[in-house]
Order: sequence, then C-alpha cells, then structure tokens
Amino acid sequence: MNPLLQLDNIRSVLIRQEETIIFALVERAQFRVNARVYRPGGIAIPEFEGSFVDFLLHGTEALHAKVRRYQSPDEHPFTDNLPPPLLEAIDHGSPLARNTININARIKALYEETIVPEICAAGDDEQYGSTAVCDVACLQALSKRIHYGKFVAESKFRSDPATYGTAVKAGDAEQLLKLVTDLAVEEKLCARVRRKAAAYGQDLTEPSGEYKIEPEFVAELYRDHIIPLTKDVEVAYLLQHPVSE
Amino acid sequence: MNPLLQLDNIRSVLIRQEETIIFALVERAQFRVNARVYRPGGIAIPEFEGSFVDFLLHGTEALHAKVRRYQSPDEHPFTDNLPPPLLEAIDHGSPLARNTININARIKALYEETIVPEICAAGDDEQYGSTAVCDVACLQALSKRIHYGKFVAESKFRSDPATYGTAVKAGDAEQLLKLVTDLAVEEKLCARVRRKAAAYGQDLTEPSGEYKIEPEFVAELYRDHIIPLTKDVEVAYLLQHPVSE
Repeated sequence: MNPLLQLDNIRSVLIRQEETIIFALVERAQFRVNARVYRPGGIAIPEFEGSFVDFLLHGTEALHAKVRRYQSPDEHPFTDNLPPPLLEAIDHGSPLARNTININARIKALYEETIVPEICAAGDDEQYGSTAVCDVACLQALSKRIHYGKFVAESKFRSDPATYGTAVKAGDAEQLLKLVTDLAVEEKLCARVRRKAAAYGQDLTEPSGEYKIEPEFVAELYRDHIIPLTKDVEVAYLLQHPVSE
Repeated sequence: MNPLLQLDNIRSVLIRQEETIIFALVERAQFRVNARVYRPGGIAIPEFEGSFVDFLLHGTEALHAKVRRYQSPDEHPFTDNLPPPLLEAIDHGSPLARNTININARIKALYEETIVPEICAAGDDEQYGSTAVCDVACLQALSKRIHYGKFVAESKFRSDPATYGTAVKAGDAEQLLKLVTDLAVEEKLCARVRRKAAAYGQDLTEPSGEYKIEPEFVAELYRDHIIPLTKDVEVAYLLQHPVSE
C-alpha cells in the first residue's frame, strides 16, 4: 500500500501536527484579540477588499502557490485567484480519489470567532502585523490537520471496501460517520493533547504554574471542533468516492 | 522613559522570544537537512538567482514590507529590493538613534551552516516547501532577537551616558563590549533556555524521554552565538551613537 495511506504513518503525521497547532496557538496568544485585523476594511488597504488577515493570507498563499504548495494533496488554500506554479508540476501521485472538498471557510470562522477570543486577552495592542502572521500559521496548521481526514478516510475505505462501498452507494452520511468514529481513539487523543498543551504552554520563566493557553481549552478544541470537522471531511470525501458496481 | 527602553520590558520581550525561537527550531527539526534548499540554483526557479529559501524569504519579506513590517525599529529584512508600504507610514517614534546596523547575513550563515545541520537529521526528504517555510520563521525569530540588542544598548547608554559616551567618543569597541557584558545574567539565561527547550522539545507521545532538539544544543546556541551576536549589535549600535561634546 502507498505509505501515505498506512494508518500508522497517518497517525504519526496527525500526532506531529498537534505540536504545530499548539505552538501556533501559544504564539498567537501573546497578542490581544485585535479584532480590527479580522474586519473587512478594519485596516484599509488600497485596492483590496477584505480584512488585514485576508490580505496576508492571500499574499502568503500566492507566494506558496508559486512553489507548488497547493499541488500537494494535503494542502488546501483559503483564498482564490492564486497564481500558477513557477516550478514544473510534479506528479505527486496522489493516493486520494479525485475530490473537491475544502472546508477552509468553516475553519476560518471557527478560528476567528471561537479560538481567538478564547486564547487571547481582550482588546487591542496594535500588533497587527505580528498578529496576522500568527493567524496565517494557525489557519494553515488547522487546515492541514482537518483536511488530513481525506487520507484517513481513503485508508479506512481501502481496509474494508465492501462495508464502506455499501454506505457510499446509499449516500448514507450517518452510517459513514458511525464507521469512521472511534471514541476510544478520540479520548486518548484529547488526553494526549491536554498533556502536550500543558507542557508546551507552561510559563517556565517564573514558577507561576501559569499556562499561556489553557490545556483544557486545547483538549476541548480538539473534542468539539477539530475532530468533528475532520470527520466531516472524511464523510464528505467518502461520499465522493468511486465505488465499483 | 519610553517604555520600549525600560530594561524590565526589554527583558520580558527577550524572554518571550525564547519560546518563539525554540518552537521554530523544533518545527524545523521534523524535516531533514535538505541541503538543496540552501544552494543557489539547487531548485531552479525561473528568473530568480539564489536558493529556494532565498526565494521564499524574499517573497515573504516583500509581502510583509507592503504592510510596513520593516518600518518598525525592531524588524530587519534579509533581502533587498522590497516594495514600499501600501499603508500610510506611521511614525513609530523610534526610541533608537539613527543607525545602519543589519547583521542578517551573518545570522543566515549561522543558521544554514551551523544550526540546521545540528538540529536536523542528515539527508533529503523532499519536503522543500515545508522546510523553507520553517526556515523563514527561524530566521525571522533569530533576527528579531539579535537586533533587539539595539534596544538593550540604547537603554544601557541612557542609564549611564557619561561612561558610555567616553567609550563611544574613543571608538573603544573592546571597552563597550565589557560594559554591555553581564556574565551572571548570561548564565541565568542559558539555564532558562535549556529548561525551556527540555519542556517544549520533549516527546510526549511515547514516554521515550527523547527530545526533538537537544536542550544542551539550544543553551550552547545562545551562549556561543545568539548572545555574542546580540552584543555585537549592541557595540556596533553604540559606536554609531551620537554623544554630546
């Protein structure tokens, strides 16, 4: 089997992404909410409609598109009108079925409306540039993790094409959601993420016992949002999956 | 006094930057050395001379320049030919004396030649895009920390203008280096950085006791490179400092 689809490999990629997400959140948490950066026109940029974060996000994605980031099956842009790659296309030999799933709009709303107000102190410190750079890192990390559900789903489909195929042919999203759910794994994951957030977010400067972000919030973020969104990606992906007649 | 020059504030900025640097290094360490990304032409980019990292670095800095990053006295670009800001200039009211110090070329050499081979496994995993994105984050974090020496130096100068003024007038770099050196503070800093690297770089997935980067290396990096380079910035800055006759 393609190593990208071996469950052990997928698992270690997802586990490593926990660090990336927690680091990015801890970095963002050093600045205040700075709501202006999320409001279209909050910081007026000539000839650009959208928020300050949209501007940085589009600019970053345009740059990364030039070096082929979004040709990779595990990368999904938040913005449109990206330039073509400067480098020759390489055939990544995607192990995924052709699909059109990109739920970044939901991820962005979750991030701006739920995560930022939770991890950042209220108010405005005028650190707009640093804030938006952190936002881009957080959004990219969350998007990569959640869309990795496509690899999880493909792997699961291949491990039991008969059962999955039946649910796919019936268009039975509810059954697919049941099939991809493993509560024991999810609980273990949340416990691990809580441990990691406690270790990486602790204040080691003074023995204050304070956390830069609450470990419990990170566990809840996974339980209530990241895991369900990942499973939404899995189900949506499976519903588009070709099945043999 | 301008709050940017109060030693307590400077100290807390520098301490918080330790997290940013360690997180960035841990993130980079998940990929192999990937020497190709540092070699000019190692990955051919049409109409661009320089390495793949240079391309990403210039593109990122061009984007950030548009939103005024390099108008801030604590930010220093690695690359030239950056576009003017799209946003109106704001007077940051820099508390620094006018100066031309930018040692990013030395920082980049340190990073590519010493840091990457130390923290990354040898070889090539073809993760060039992810690698270069991490490189940009590491370089920006190191540059910001080291050039913060300008604020340290200005604060010290103002705390004792007579002593510093005499050394500046004499162009006595050796004496200035002595004046800005505090070995007790440096030792405390290295111990703290070692503790932080141990906490943030530990592998919490398995109780393996392994580190993603060696805490001792991070302490040495500060002792042998980051602190000396910061002091070089301090001395160079002071040598350009105006003194009353």
